[in-house]
Amino acid sequence: MAELVGNVLVGQSGGPTSVINASVAGIVAEALNHECVEEVYGALNGVLGILQEDLVDLASESQQQIRALRHPPGAARGTCRYKLKKQQDFERVLEVFKAHNIRYFFYIGGNDSQDTADKISKLAGQQGYELRVIGVPKTIDNDLSVTDHCPGYGSVIKYLATSVREMACDHEAMGQGDLVSIVEVMGRSAGWIAAGASLAKRRDHPHDPPHLILLPEVPFNQEKILEDVRRVLKREKFCLIVAAEGLVDADGNYLAADAATDAFGHAKLGGAGDALAEIIETGIPTAKVRVARPGIMQRAAAHSASKTDVDEAFMAGQAAVRAAVAGETDKMITLVRGETDHYTCETGLAPLGEIANGIKKLPREWINEDSVSMNFQFLRYAQPLIQGEVTLPYDTGVPVFARLDKVRVEKTLPAFEA
Amino acid sequence: MAELVGNVLVGQSGGPTSVINASVAGIVAEALNHECVEEVYGALNGVLGILQEDLVDLASESQQQIRALRHPPGAARGTCRYKLKKQQDFERVLEVFKAHNIRYFFYIGGNDSQDTADKISKLAGQQGYELRVIGVPKTIDNDLSVTDHCPGYGSVIKYLATSVREMACDHEAMGQGDLVSIVEVMGRSAGWIAAGASLAKRRDHPHDPPHLILLPEVPFNQEKILEDVRRVLKREKFCLIVAAEGLVDADGNYLAADAATDAFGHAKLGGAGDALAEIIETGIPTAKVRVARPGIMQRAAAHSASKTDVDEAFMAGQAAVRAAVAGETDKMITLVRGETDHYTCETGLAPLGEIANGIKKLPREWINEDSVSMNFQFLRYAQPLIQGEVTLPYDTGVPVFARLDKVRVEKTLPAFEA
Repeated sequence: MAELVGNVLVGQSGGPTSVINASVAGIVAEALNHECVEEVYGALNGVLGILQEDLVDLASESQQQIRALRHPPGAARGTCRYKLKKQQDFERVLEVFKAHNIRYFFYIGGNDSQDTADKISKLAGQQGYELRVIGVPKTIDNDLSVTDHCPGYGSVIKYLATSVREMACDHEAMGQGDLVSIVEVMGRSAGWIAAGASLAKRRDHPHDPPHLILLPEVPFNQEKILEDVRRVLKREKFCLIVAAEGLVDADGNYLAADAATDAFGHAKLGGAGDALAEIIETGIPTAKVRVARPGIMQRAAAHSASKTDVDEAFMAGQAAVRAAVAGETDKMITLVRGETDHYTCETGLAPLGEIANGIKKLPREWINEDSVSMNFQFLRYAQPLIQGEVTLPYDTGVPVFARLDKVRVEKTLPAFEA
Repeated sequence: MAELVGNVLVGQSGGPTSVINASVAGIVAEALNHECVEEVYGALNGVLGILQEDLVDLASESQQQIRALRHPPGAARGTCRYKLKKQQDFERVLEVFKAHNIRYFFYIGGNDSQDTADKISKLAGQQGYELRVIGVPKTIDNDLSVTDHCPGYGSVIKYLATSVREMACDHEAMGQGDLVSIVEVMGRSAGWIAAGASLAKRRDHPHDPPHLILLPEVPFNQEKILEDVRRVLKREKFCLIVAAEGLVDADGNYLAADAATDAFGHAKLGGAGDALAEIIETGIPTAKVRVARPGIMQRAAAHSASKTDVDEAFMAGQAAVRAAVAGETDKMITLVRGETDHYTCETGLAPLGEIANGIKKLPREWINEDSVSMNFQFLRYAQPLIQGEVTLPYDTGVPVFARLDKVRVEKTLPAFEA
């Protein structure tokens, strides 16, 4: 494989995670090892920044700043929910790449982003422009196919498991047989996040909260839920429920949906917790129902990130650079779990086309027969992902997050209307 | 003052905080120093446990367990929202005290609890039963009069300031001029908690989130809010709002209230964030509004507790025992701030009658003229309260909290119907 000399461009897209910047740090750190990489640029605001030629010079940032990048929960150079649709958008991307001699493109994101990366890669091939495109997985939803798990997932479930265990202490103190507490968590189409909250249970304490986990994979059945809540209230004096935002009934209708959809056509959800509260308050009039909806707090909670997750996100960034330099393209980095009982994780590669827009559901056989709790197979899968705590620098009582200087790269092209 | 020999009883009431058990630990630890204290009991579930003679033997717990008690976020022996009303309830309390030779009663709680403690103390006086009653302040609401601040408050605002700063990183990445993010926080009648979120701002960055703080002290004005949001969106590309649950309009009507009231006659609130979202979505149709409502997560977030708060809660417990042994009664421990610029805090005493049912409002002169941000006087007040982080023990990725053995004290009285 001939050495490809040129510049690196890193983009991020979609909702941030606690560890999204750790992958950027991994890419920048690894790029320093390879002489064929000349400049390291970042796109401001994901593909939108590429279209508008808004690039920043990541190589000019100090090493301290790159090191500190492991922790800030946003996308340090911005992201976007803009979706490349038109042919002229894709052609503009290539135009920008050529203008800045981008030969390595690393795109950190979920399903939609991997799809975008795949299309950019294919167009470059058609145009005979030598470009190596490697996707880096990133999504708290953990719903990318092929990879064992996704950077971002371990941290969100560590945060939620911690919060549920804390709420359990609170509720044990308050519960008088009538307290029903609902935590509405993210998860539009897969219950990975809701399931992860089950890590709040102590070993050999199956009756610990969360008492009921309501998953999008299990059609919502009002009568069964009420029965479950009554049973738990009787046994535990309070009932803590973790509910995914994307709960659906047997006909596939969302329990709570807004008429609006986002740029990708996904339904805008919210309110499953409140809808559930109303059902319980009506069905069990003595119940006092409280709803917590951490919303964006959960995906941003870097102070409670999983060290394993941060390390793997960094590793995925490094692996992307190594793969590209070695000649790979049109692939996504995957996380591959070792076969032994002792958890190990290394990276692999999968064709972008295999990942794009596929959704990995929570395996049905990891859900207990009661359909509201997870079995040992899920625990064996998820527990290693939340191990280890990070130590953030604090200043005057609040964590300090890295901010990049964002030195702009000079524009050379005429402006483009996105 | 003659030495009073007898047993100690510790009760907790109302909503838990991250540091409620630190005060219990302080009481138990200090009690060991005084020979006049024979047994140390805890009441299960607050006054309800006293009425029902459900007492546990705290002195039989190991010292490791008492030490670990500094951290669990619930009330380790349960609390309640039961309100003593009838004369026969109060008489029953005294009956139980006499049956178990309780001579020292420490009651950890907010306004209502201090009121209860006051009444118990007065009844004991009337009956000529020698009893020393000391209240220990505890409320995330920070609305007790006389004391400079309340144990529990520092931790909840440290958690919220951290979360807002994290969300700011997330939103800076996502903001395209249309993102409005609302965090609904606790605070029924005083804006202390919402105001505390302003600690998320970096020094000399007044435009950092939270951009707008909506307080119950400031009557809600729809037109002004919309104008404020528009201004911030233009300047910052996103707008992060922290809104207290108890927002009221100029006529004193809650922005969002449920018809229900709790046992103390307080309105049951919830949904101010969603109500605000609707107002903004209607007034600014291009806005994409997201609501986070951490709910009980915020008062239970022991993993993000303020070390200053934990230490002061412990100190308040110790001080209660010392005061009672020295002959004080019918008083509440207060936290007294030193006069110097360098923050110091010691304990004082105030008559229970002065505290009961008084509410300390956020001083109007600490709110900026824009009525949506806090000035340096508030920062000077609040910043010391969130300093220092706690290190919790973690097991398999989740914090471990102490659990007491709860060895029951034998009942000697006939049962009582509460």
